[in-house]
Amino acid sequence: MKIAIMGFGTVGTGVEEILYKKRKSLLKNNFDITIERILIKNKNKKRNPHDKNLIFTDDFDEIINSDLETVIDVTSNLEETHERIVRLMKAKKNIVTANKAVVSKYFEELSELARENEVYFAYEASVAGAIPIIHPLMEEVFFNDISEISGILNGTSNYILSKMEREGLDYEEVLKEAQELGYAEADPSADVGGLDAMRKIRILSSLIYDAKIAEDEIFTFGISNIKKSDFDFAKDMAYSIRLLGKSSLKDGKINISVMPRFLKDDFFAKTFDGINAIKVHGENFKSYELKGPGAGKLETADAIMRDLLRILAKREIATFYMAENSYPVENNLEKKYYLRASKISDELKNLTSSEKIIGDDHHIITKKIELKKLTHAINGLKDIFIAEIEEEI
Amino acid sequence: MKIAIMGFGTVGTGVEEILYKKRKSLLKNNFDITIERILIKNKNKKRNPHDKNLIFTDDFDEIINSDLETVIDVTSNLEETHERIVRLMKAKKNIVTANKAVVSKYFEELSELARENEVYFAYEASVAGAIPIIHPLMEEVFFNDISEISGILNGTSNYILSKMEREGLDYEEVLKEAQELGYAEADPSADVGGLDAMRKIRILSSLIYDAKIAEDEIFTFGISNIKKSDFDFAKDMAYSIRLLGKSSLKDGKINISVMPRFLKDDFFAKTFDGINAIKVHGENFKSYELKGPGAGKLETADAIMRDLLRILAKREIATFYMAENSYPVENNLEKKYYLRASKISDELKNLTSSEKIIGDDHHIITKKIELKKLTHAINGLKDIFIAEIEEEI
Repeated sequence: MKIAIMGFGTVGTGVEEILYKKRKSLLKNNFDITIERILIKNKNKKRNPHDKNLIFTDDFDEIINSDLETVIDVTSNLEETHERIVRLMKAKKNIVTANKAVVSKYFEELSELARENEVYFAYEASVAGAIPIIHPLMEEVFFNDISEISGILNGTSNYILSKMEREGLDYEEVLKEAQELGYAEADPSADVGGLDAMRKIRILSSLIYDAKIAEDEIFTFGISNIKKSDFDFAKDMAYSIRLLGKSSLKDGKINISVMPRFLKDDFFAKTFDGINAIKVHGENFKSYELKGPGAGKLETADAIMRDLLRILAKREIATFYMAENSYPVENNLEKKYYLRASKISDELKNLTSSEKIIGDDHHIITKKIELKKLTHAINGLKDIFIAEIEEEI
Repeated sequence: MKIAIMGFGTVGTGVEEILYKKRKSLLKNNFDITIERILIKNKNKKRNPHDKNLIFTDDFDEIINSDLETVIDVTSNLEETHERIVRLMKAKKNIVTANKAVVSKYFEELSELARENEVYFAYEASVAGAIPIIHPLMEEVFFNDISEISGILNGTSNYILSKMEREGLDYEEVLKEAQELGYAEADPSADVGGLDAMRKIRILSSLIYDAKIAEDEIFTFGISNIKKSDFDFAKDMAYSIRLLGKSSLKDGKINISVMPRFLKDDFFAKTFDGINAIKVHGENFKSYELKGPGAGKLETADAIMRDLLRILAKREIATFYMAENSYPVENNLEKKYYLRASKISDELKNLTSSEKIIGDDHHIITKKIELKKLTHAINGLKDIFIAEIEEEI
């Protein structure tokens, strides 16, 4: 079975490592996998694969014109990769991708293309690394109405938040250290701004509700404005703060958002470092919880391997995501929110339940309100931080 | 697609409920499932299925002589069910079973029979109810050396332990209440004695190590001797107590046991009521954790549905458990243990690191010792309670 890998960064090297080291066990189980080509941008960069005979190329045509059956995408590029995946599917190649940006933005189009061209479109690795979540949910949706899903879906943000919390440090300090250690990118905005978590909750939610949810419909507020004083305030109320993507479907309406949340549960509030955590609520069970590494070389490669072997063994689920349902995103559930701002408006005052002024900052707990009331009231305010307050169950 | 169900207790009614209520969604996805027969012991018992046209029978021959392809086993019988599964496999019927007693005792034989007769043998529902654990592990073992697995695998015991802990109650009191509420059987010995958890850790461990592990090789110590004073003692050391099945493979040797453990982690120690929790350690990831309902009508039926649909869609993994590896069960890791006894021996004194006498009882913390030293030293002692003390990582 011939495959190609697009990209040879952290995850790509992980896939190559597993395929090389486990060749014997894979062959014994009838998985004879040959990496035909690895597509990279810079042919002159020194690389150190386990298999010294690997062929690297910067020519996409060598991939698309070959007779290989399955292409593994571990690029982090959005538009170029999207365009290539489209061409590959039309050329009847199966796609296994870890690229959440592409899956989230083009979920409907790529699902449809996979059906039309009768190829597999597998994206277990796009959400929560080694945690088996996408495929188990795919198996579940035919006979279990999943009503809610929530998760710590971005390891970088969680690393920063849990370190700020445990060590009482400032955001900038922790971010800098995370960047030095390689836990945060030089440009961390997709992670700390909530964009990465937004893509993942979009993928999970669309899948379980079989509904298109446009990225810009998802209220997304990251952690880049967080201060030590927010943690101090939360701690006084016995809360932790975590960045949570969350969606629910109730009475035909969707609530979906990514934002910091005040939590005091045993699950999310106790998720530390770069770990991901997901909670699923369904009709057939109250909930189940999964926790594990959301990123990493072998961790993400592990999820890719599962998809790859399913495809090779013809055990993969044919793409069934149809976006057949159309539910309005209303965010109509009423919640309490925490807000910190140096200046507040009259509109905000009307939503306030309690307020504490520390130094130059107003720390506010709102009444129970719909999210849109809050977003309207904070429109134009600068350097603010907001968090939803999770009610105790 | 014609199926039969053997047994119509809690889980059987759950399967029938899901098949009935989700018929439309299942049909739309090409799952046309007809329950041909339901095998029950007592034809005169009043039953209340959703589909009023269901045919109940007490004649096993009607099942085995029919042209149906897949039989769902939700009996709790051991030997009779084993014999029937053997006959069904030989008659080329796929088996989906929730019966952990049968899977654990006859894992090698049934796996071999499934291969010989080219039928599927699916047992996701035999461990941890709705939590997707068996099938994800099956996908993983070809390319990920899983080195350790541990879990709270018996809901009844965990219900009793967490209630004793939270409410400061005695064992007998909580057991009685659990029986009245239906959380514990009239004869609870398989649950509180650790037998049920032993079966589950045997199934999980055999699967991930591809090794036969005889049930009687697994040191099993339940919770039926636990006293309030044990919780008080643990609490003074900031520990919780949970019944954990645990196995690891290191340097070709297996450590495996089911016993109460002193824990202070955020995962097992925070697992309450009838919830199951499993932690998996592998080569490709440090660990991942899963938590959810380990039993229940729709919860267990949910796992059966996943197996059933995989078989119908020809997406199930053909049985690959070969028990090819032979690792000695040595329990050679050195641990500290807690022990409470009214009388102790000289042999036990030699293993003791610290001792506290409360009333008539010796509460002992041992030195770091191999399990066999402990089991040898307690041989013949009556009414004792022991627990492994989990080291902090």
